[in-house]
Amino acid sequence: MTPFEYLKKEEQNSLGQLKELLRIPSISAQSQYEAEVARCAEWVAGYMTRIGISAKTMETGGHPVVFGQYRASAKAPTILIYGHYDVQPVDPPDLWHSGPFEPVEKDGYLIARGAADDKGQFFAHLKGVEAYLKTVGALPLNVKFLIEGEEEAGTENLDRFIRQHADLLAADVVVVSDTAQYNDDIPAIDFGLRGIASVEVKVTGPDRDLHSGGYGGAVANPINILARLIGQLHDDKGRVTVDGFYDKVYTMSAWEKEQYAQLPFKEDEFIKLTGVPALWGEKGYGVLERIWVRPTLDCNGITGGYQGEGGKTIIPSWASAKITMRLVPEMDPKEISDKFEAHLKKICPDSVRLEVTKHGGAKPIQVPVDSPWLKAAAHAVEEGFGVRPYFIKEGGSIPVVEKFKSVLGLDTLLIGLSQPDNNAHSPNEKLLLRSFHRGCRVSVALFEALSHVKA
Amino acid sequence: MTPFEYLKKEEQNSLGQLKELLRIPSISAQSQYEAEVARCAEWVAGYMTRIGISAKTMETGGHPVVFGQYRASAKAPTILIYGHYDVQPVDPPDLWHSGPFEPVEKDGYLIARGAADDKGQFFAHLKGVEAYLKTVGALPLNVKFLIEGEEEAGTENLDRFIRQHADLLAADVVVVSDTAQYNDDIPAIDFGLRGIASVEVKVTGPDRDLHSGGYGGAVANPINILARLIGQLHDDKGRVTVDGFYDKVYTMSAWEKEQYAQLPFKEDEFIKLTGVPALWGEKGYGVLERIWVRPTLDCNGITGGYQGEGGKTIIPSWASAKITMRLVPEMDPKEISDKFEAHLKKICPDSVRLEVTKHGGAKPIQVPVDSPWLKAAAHAVEEGFGVRPYFIKEGGSIPVVEKFKSVLGLDTLLIGLSQPDNNAHSPNEKLLLRSFHRGCRVSVALFEALSHVKA
Repeated sequence: MTPFEYLKKEEQNSLGQLKELLRIPSISAQSQYEAEVARCAEWVAGYMTRIGISAKTMETGGHPVVFGQYRASAKAPTILIYGHYDVQPVDPPDLWHSGPFEPVEKDGYLIARGAADDKGQFFAHLKGVEAYLKTVGALPLNVKFLIEGEEEAGTENLDRFIRQHADLLAADVVVVSDTAQYNDDIPAIDFGLRGIASVEVKVTGPDRDLHSGGYGGAVANPINILARLIGQLHDDKGRVTVDGFYDKVYTMSAWEKEQYAQLPFKEDEFIKLTGVPALWGEKGYGVLERIWVRPTLDCNGITGGYQGEGGKTIIPSWASAKITMRLVPEMDPKEISDKFEAHLKKICPDSVRLEVTKHGGAKPIQVPVDSPWLKAAAHAVEEGFGVRPYFIKEGGSIPVVEKFKSVLGLDTLLIGLSQPDNNAHSPNEKLLLRSFHRGCRVSVALFEALSHVKA
Repeated sequence: MTPFEYLKKEEQNSLGQLKELLRIPSISAQSQYEAEVARCAEWVAGYMTRIGISAKTMETGGHPVVFGQYRASAKAPTILIYGHYDVQPVDPPDLWHSGPFEPVEKDGYLIARGAADDKGQFFAHLKGVEAYLKTVGALPLNVKFLIEGEEEAGTENLDRFIRQHADLLAADVVVVSDTAQYNDDIPAIDFGLRGIASVEVKVTGPDRDLHSGGYGGAVANPINILARLIGQLHDDKGRVTVDGFYDKVYTMSAWEKEQYAQLPFKEDEFIKLTGVPALWGEKGYGVLERIWVRPTLDCNGITGGYQGEGGKTIIPSWASAKITMRLVPEMDPKEISDKFEAHLKKICPDSVRLEVTKHGGAKPIQVPVDSPWLKAAAHAVEEGFGVRPYFIKEGGSIPVVEKFKSVLGLDTLLIGLSQPDNNAHSPNEKLLLRSFHRGCRVSVALFEALSHVKA
């Protein structure tokens, strides 16, 4: 029996085991679930042990991680598979059509909190290992598992864990299945993530709110000034005007452009999906390029003056805005935050006081497209799905992927096994059943494919 | 005993009565204070009745007005004294050094919300009537009081009330004490007020908050767009760019310029008073001209997206701003609001939806400088303060003054009894105690002086 035949035969069992995992309400952000989170870690470690992976839970200062290890041979490559067993809260509970922790099958989907994010995805890789060990008897490469319990609650504990256990986690490449396919039946590999730099701007004028009748015209209004500053941060072409903002922005290769051009993307569907009256963005780039390979500057919040019912005729003492910039290779969050501050200082009039607070960020990620790992992964995904994957990017950042690069020096293969409309973080989270079974096959194919890569 | 002697003897009682009035949190703009506003109206009517004025509260459709009337003789002039018993909200409450509605005396000031704006000022005129009636036994002229409860919340109800009760309110001239002296010891009579036009701008993009990673760059950010719109509303010379904004702005007379040139105004004191790092305003005009005779455009509040602790990486669905424009003769609030809306529509990109709500406003006011009422008032003020008043203007608007002109055909004598740094509309609103007592004397002198004017 081949591993694939095993998976076929095992389908109902696999689903039953996944349901068992989904029944554990491992909500990491809510302290009343602490015992359940711990029970979930034990369940995962137990499952690993049962199928022949040496596994243990390890302390992080927060919820434990599950670390598993299968040693094939010192000569074979080592892959590190990352996932998370914790899940989002279920609020609002009354919008769920069935219990968040009572998995049900409906219309080809498995519905439960964590089905897509991320239990259903990392579990496929455990089934991949199991299929190999139950049939071939050994894996063709070394596998490490790092399944954490705080992905939905913060990153500090895991960041420290990675720094402290860099040797234990040493590998040749990382595999993460915590993203989405291109659509229900077309798989995707993310080969890049945007980074982020986060700043806060505060403009202060008078030392208290002033009457806008008595003082208006002779005193700079902090809201008007802040608006004027923010308004100047984009030019008429939608480009960010911060001095040196684009200095280190990489240029897409012909290959990358071609990947996006191939995608069956429809602008009218994007407009419908977002509810905007019309598209916006940097001239000269398509929607996917604007989201994936161009940097941005967005206000996430602004506040100043009187915001209640009715009106209040004041010149407020201050106004402030929270701003994040999305970064692409080779932009650096610290450098960009410094440039932002310098630029604001340059354009701010002396009639107000300016404060820029820099909150740090994460670097952008780009997996080299000529990487043999990426090619092997694409081959495996095609084998699992029966369809070639698209190469896409992700506009948001996944902080742990940046840590794997900066701390461990490793690239990450982002192989999405859930659907774009999976309701992750929302009620009625779901996973296409056929996608789970395809994911198990991808895992088997991945071990084979990656085992031949010369690191 | 003369009325002046009565006032002297009565000083502590007067202060105690004013404190009682200030303890009522009559915030007209916040619906949870509705009962307190009503209670305040009853207090004022009760006080009038107690001192011998025929008084009642009257319905307006909103908060009631207090109407009081003293008939001296059909041959004597009739003056209408206007004031307002409602007050501004107290936000932000934590910047108050003592409770906004727990009046305290400190450093010669009475500190409480409404001390200056306007309870402490209109109450001086009640004390003036009281002093006359308790000593002389009769007033030398007919006096009507119109003390309203919605000055800080809107003008529609009072506007209608004035139109509907034009006969009841018929008079020869109006007296309003709701403005400021020139400084602590030099009184002032305002012969002009700026008008106001009030609008609200809302910009809507996506139909819900979007993830700024997944969508940033391809969707117009409502905060950024709103900021850009607001930022474009002034040019580099501090002039408002709204098309046609200055079309009807009048030119100062030589006499008017001379009045301002006489004033002992010091820019460095103004900077200190406001706490701003440097002056700002329309090039080519001095501070007093910027405040009194030039129009403005100020944001009073702005809101959008996430404003709490930490960050939230969203593109918010919408952002909005409250904006008021100060108007000078012969600008019209409706015309200016229409021009504002047209201008915004012209400059707003189609990637967002724009809503401009026009909240109405008030026309600017100019009192004829050769009026005998104005001369009599100047005489009375000099008697009350022992110093000749300056003729100045006021940058704020008192919408009702415009209604007195347009509906009742009456000019208004604006006799300021509070200080320029009275913190009206700000935390720690205050009134100089000696000013309150001088104000009571001005009131007595005013009745005498105005009784001799031939209308």
